[in-house]
Amino acid sequence: MEQKKGFHVAVLGATGAVGQQMIQSLEKKDFPISKLTLLSSARSAGSTVRYKGEELTVQEATSESFANVDIALFSAGGSVSKEFAHYAVAHGAIVVDNTSAFRMDENVPLVVPEVNEEDIHNHKGIIANPNCSTIQMVVALEPIRQKFGLKKVIVSTYQAVSGSGAAAVEELQEQTKAILNEEPYEPAILPVKGDKKHYQIAFNAIPQIDKFVENGFTFEEMKMINETKKIMHLPELQVAATCVRLPIATGHSESIYFEVNDEGISSHEIKELLKDAPGIVLQDDPENQIYPMPADCVGKSDVFVGRIRNDLDNSKGFHMWVVSDNLLKGAAWNSVQIAESLINLGLVR
Amino acid sequence: MEQKKGFHVAVLGATGAVGQQMIQSLEKKDFPISKLTLLSSARSAGSTVRYKGEELTVQEATSESFANVDIALFSAGGSVSKEFAHYAVAHGAIVVDNTSAFRMDENVPLVVPEVNEEDIHNHKGIIANPNCSTIQMVVALEPIRQKFGLKKVIVSTYQAVSGSGAAAVEELQEQTKAILNEEPYEPAILPVKGDKKHYQIAFNAIPQIDKFVENGFTFEEMKMINETKKIMHLPELQVAATCVRLPIATGHSESIYFEVNDEGISSHEIKELLKDAPGIVLQDDPENQIYPMPADCVGKSDVFVGRIRNDLDNSKGFHMWVVSDNLLKGAAWNSVQIAESLINLGLVR
Repeated sequence: MEQKKGFHVAVLGATGAVGQQMIQSLEKKDFPISKLTLLSSARSAGSTVRYKGEELTVQEATSESFANVDIALFSAGGSVSKEFAHYAVAHGAIVVDNTSAFRMDENVPLVVPEVNEEDIHNHKGIIANPNCSTIQMVVALEPIRQKFGLKKVIVSTYQAVSGSGAAAVEELQEQTKAILNEEPYEPAILPVKGDKKHYQIAFNAIPQIDKFVENGFTFEEMKMINETKKIMHLPELQVAATCVRLPIATGHSESIYFEVNDEGISSHEIKELLKDAPGIVLQDDPENQIYPMPADCVGKSDVFVGRIRNDLDNSKGFHMWVVSDNLLKGAAWNSVQIAESLINLGLVR
Repeated sequence: MEQKKGFHVAVLGATGAVGQQMIQSLEKKDFPISKLTLLSSARSAGSTVRYKGEELTVQEATSESFANVDIALFSAGGSVSKEFAHYAVAHGAIVVDNTSAFRMDENVPLVVPEVNEEDIHNHKGIIANPNCSTIQMVVALEPIRQKFGLKKVIVSTYQAVSGSGAAAVEELQEQTKAILNEEPYEPAILPVKGDKKHYQIAFNAIPQIDKFVENGFTFEEMKMINETKKIMHLPELQVAATCVRLPIATGHSESIYFEVNDEGISSHEIKELLKDAPGIVLQDDPENQIYPMPADCVGKSDVFVGRIRNDLDNSKGFHMWVVSDNLLKGAAWNSVQIAESLINLGLVR
């Protein structure tokens, strides 16, 4: 099959925190684009965004916006995705959706290219990009699953506010300034914009990301649990998550305990395995205080792994610390990687 | 036995972050004091500290400082404790030591009064106050151990910088200001003052508290593991910890996974149990976004517990979120509680 020189790519949610990173990721990867259409709500339409030295005007998304579009990257919220995905598909575009709208739909592949690129073949017009905190965890766990098997995962997250959008980052900054100046400040966004109460995030830790489910977990925690099983094709995997929002602008960290199936594996073997694994940078040298930190990962597309060590009681148990830029590998970069995979697999007309 | 009306209490490290809180805790509890002797290094000697409206002058600690002292509260670092504890004991004082110097010494009880007050009877002059992150965890776990048995604990911590002393709090504040003003700042204290490298703490997460041990864990993590087993009298308990320093001034949080021995326990039963347990305030109402947060715990002496929920895979597994003021229940308050227990148990001459 002859490959086209360039594709018509649309970005829906082009003015948002993730949309901006999508456009930058397309540029950084020198993605083969013949035409780039930037779309947003009516409110943000008319603003301009820079792409390869050109100022592109953002247009209001309509049912007709997707004519002749090959690949549409969606990141404008779940309800917007639900409204526009079928228009895009009807026009023959393939949607890569970075919202939770379709992730658990059995007709929609949920893809992290380093883990389950082959699932893209099963798409019916829509491919879902997983939750940010899920992506970095499965990238780190997949090489381990492949070689030693994976039985159990318990994760506690240390999540940055940019996962709640640009306004949450501004809230963190303004609130931090106010507290340092001993001025009053009224929290208005975090932990969840649409929830009843809002709490101080500066110099604090909020054990709530997204709303609560009846079982006491939050939606964010259930996303990590369910998405991990789906992406890794391990419906029987034991997974539990506690998700916590912290006063960090960008960069999610995760303290992960996991148990493998094989007996007698050393932490050295896990390190050797992850050192050369796709998408991973191993930063694991305690003696020289080398370990991943969110401040170091910002702007980078890799998943950083360190502090790998054997559990002291369970010979099949291990601990590790995983950090990644939640806007890049956790969102925009992974979406653009899926778009690349579509091309590489010959799935774009 | 007739009880004295008041005791001669000495505080060694009176000008430090924890020492200051010890003096405030003595005042808040209206501790029966006939004389209060405040001690420090030569460097801080001569400064004054307010106690019950009086300005007391801090004296340089010497081998003779403990004459006629009944109870000596130590919080001036492990090497200072090792230097002065035997002088204090030789003078007949009972030392309550808030450093790691004697915690794992089999002749030294390691005490959290809500958990193992009876161990105080075995003291030979020194009683150790556990590590801050250990104390709040065992207070929350002990009622569960008593009623349902305890098999396994996996904890990830979210620790405040005041655990590293007042200078670390200042570093967080100054560094945060510098970053908000886009000014340069050279980290000099955190994660560990005496270690080779120092990293940005503002808007960051550092997965290192104290130096590293050969097994890949840090000393802080090994303290949590070993001290928990000792305090709870559970040498066979499976415990693992990952300790992380965060841009929070005061208030440690912990994401704790634990497994009980009994089958068929519900999270509701755990909540009912902890609601009335000593030293614990239950804040667990997800529907109304009620859960503990460090910003709310500052200045309070309780251990706050919330987000209690059954694990979704292991019927004996649970998750919970535990928060406490690391300078109070984690240090000063617990030390003063031990001193109170000494009096209540009739162990002070």
